[in-house]
Amino acid sequence: MTHDPIALTTALLAVDSVTPARGQVFDILEAMLVPLGFAVDRFVAGEAPDGPVENLLATRGEGGTHLAFAGHLDVVPPGTGWSSAPFAPEIRGDHLYGRGAVDMKGAIGAFVAACADPQPGGTLSLIITGDEEGPATFGTPALIDRMAALGIAPDLCIVGEPTSVDCLGDMMKIGRRGSVNLWITVPGRQGHVAYPHLADNPIPRLVAILAEIDSIALDHGTDWFQPSNIEVTDITVGNPATNVIPAQASARISIRFNDLHRGAELGALIEGLARRHAPEASVVARVSGEAFLTQPGRLSMIVADSVEAHTGIRPALSTSGGTSDARFLAKLCPVVEFGLCNATMHKLDEAVAVADLVTLRAIYADIIRRTLG
Amino acid sequence: MTHDPIALTTALLAVDSVTPARGQVFDILEAMLVPLGFAVDRFVAGEAPDGPVENLLATRGEGGTHLAFAGHLDVVPPGTGWSSAPFAPEIRGDHLYGRGAVDMKGAIGAFVAACADPQPGGTLSLIITGDEEGPATFGTPALIDRMAALGIAPDLCIVGEPTSVDCLGDMMKIGRRGSVNLWITVPGRQGHVAYPHLADNPIPRLVAILAEIDSIALDHGTDWFQPSNIEVTDITVGNPATNVIPAQASARISIRFNDLHRGAELGALIEGLARRHAPEASVVARVSGEAFLTQPGRLSMIVADSVEAHTGIRPALSTSGGTSDARFLAKLCPVVEFGLCNATMHKLDEAVAVADLVTLRAIYADIIRRTLG
Repeated sequence: MTHDPIALTTALLAVDSVTPARGQVFDILEAMLVPLGFAVDRFVAGEAPDGPVENLLATRGEGGTHLAFAGHLDVVPPGTGWSSAPFAPEIRGDHLYGRGAVDMKGAIGAFVAACADPQPGGTLSLIITGDEEGPATFGTPALIDRMAALGIAPDLCIVGEPTSVDCLGDMMKIGRRGSVNLWITVPGRQGHVAYPHLADNPIPRLVAILAEIDSIALDHGTDWFQPSNIEVTDITVGNPATNVIPAQASARISIRFNDLHRGAELGALIEGLARRHAPEASVVARVSGEAFLTQPGRLSMIVADSVEAHTGIRPALSTSGGTSDARFLAKLCPVVEFGLCNATMHKLDEAVAVADLVTLRAIYADIIRRTLG
Repeated sequence: MTHDPIALTTALLAVDSVTPARGQVFDILEAMLVPLGFAVDRFVAGEAPDGPVENLLATRGEGGTHLAFAGHLDVVPPGTGWSSAPFAPEIRGDHLYGRGAVDMKGAIGAFVAACADPQPGGTLSLIITGDEEGPATFGTPALIDRMAALGIAPDLCIVGEPTSVDCLGDMMKIGRRGSVNLWITVPGRQGHVAYPHLADNPIPRLVAILAEIDSIALDHGTDWFQPSNIEVTDITVGNPATNVIPAQASARISIRFNDLHRGAELGALIEGLARRHAPEASVVARVSGEAFLTQPGRLSMIVADSVEAHTGIRPALSTSGGTSDARFLAKLCPVVEFGLCNATMHKLDEAVAVADLVTLRAIYADIIRRTLG
């Protein structure tokens, strides 16, 4: 079974591991890795509300180049309306169905199967968290702390997120945009609409702030990144009375930004802008991740060559989409994300083509050979 | 007692008549009017949710000039924190305390007391509703219908709302601004902030609409009206998720306008403006009242002369503040509002100066003499 990505993936899919994942699904993965010679370190990190979270670190070999594979065993809730039970994996036609099939138990199954091949040298590790789909506070960051404490430092990292779009191999990610959310609150003074001179409506100031924000072009993109983008995602006043001027108005902003920016700098930009219209405005910024880029080089070349060798397709090097745990790992070493097709991720009837699992196993095995050989 | 505005007001204040008022407080008023020779017609109008509402129409005399006094027996809820029980009227120092003291049981008490003087001729009537502070759907409009059905048509009307500001007599109202509320809704297409090209954020269009609305100067005021005013009173998006572009954004607008405008015309103005920024926007307008003006003339002169004779102050002719039932009565005949000081209306410890009740009785008696004599 340990050579077969379909059997391994099916075993992982048979466990309900809605985020945060703990216990049984890790037991199954550990039982796969130990016979392959991995030293497995499992630990639980964090407290409520963002924890506790289970994590697993597996290493094999010592010295030489260290290649890490990073991924997550938790899945998003299945929702209702599936054609088959979401945690009872089932092959229908060419596809294997189950929550997590592409995001990303399939990639973990393919990588573990690839590890059944003889290791040409160096060090191989798996960095697996039970919380990537949730707050992620005690997931990959805790694994990075654990590795630092144990003196484990990968040289290259592959993240198994589903990066392919229309067919396996058409896209890999060499970076991700950063993300910052901002909350702008403009205070005013409540009063009756018939006596506006006795009140101070905060809405015109908030509207002026948002109108200027809507006019901002942060940049025109870079060689590897699309232009940074700002969206106003919510406005809240909460005034049910038609004849009352409200006491406060607030808005929430989401910025997805490329590597020309830092989250804190964007927070300061918006704060300055808001203060020009409303000196008393408060702006709170929360950076969920900074932009990062693994400059095209040895790792991206190896991955692209391996993909092309087994699919005939040269993958596009992309930095699009949302954030992933690669944003944490990029602080350690070059990181490239490559995995299955993402068409059904987070959707009903999530499914992976059985043939893709076989091909992905071969690609991962090739990457191991080329990096550690 | 029927000559004493303090005793009459105290009797009315001793009844809890939180809007809509019915029953006992009308019994008390009827018991005051019948001995004074008034024919009293009480009726209940309307169904839930805006009814039923009790109303009272009292008339004395026939032919000649017809002077009507309009007012309401309902009061706003007292709230908590009063120094004495809100419906247990109490004189402390120079003031009589109780919910409704100035808005407007005090004015009703003063007018009824004035009616105890011999009537010089003509027709005198009281148009009293139990719902001015609530929806008012079945209050004064129902009284107007009743009068039309009975062939009762006043020539002049005094409304006893508390129009005085710093001291009794400093202000009377010869008109009121109109009021229209508008609801603007801009539809969009929900999506993930990381893929804005797959979504359509409605917020920038709503912000552009509101920014243009904030820049509008409807007029510069008229001889008798302050400039019309637009306030954005609420914005609602209702999107709790930081990474989601919302499907819809809406705002509520309140316009208080002078007699250069009509509610429907302002609704069309805002709708046209909104559609230029967002062709798919919907705009719903609800007119609560049109602006009206009683051109300064015989009635306002009589009221001002009477006020000046008893206070030494020439009242300012104003059209400021919120709406009142005068907006309905203005369709019948010239209407002037004059009453007590409004400093404590709708507040805790609402109170009227005892001396003001005596003076107001004298002013109202003077107005009756000058109009009917």
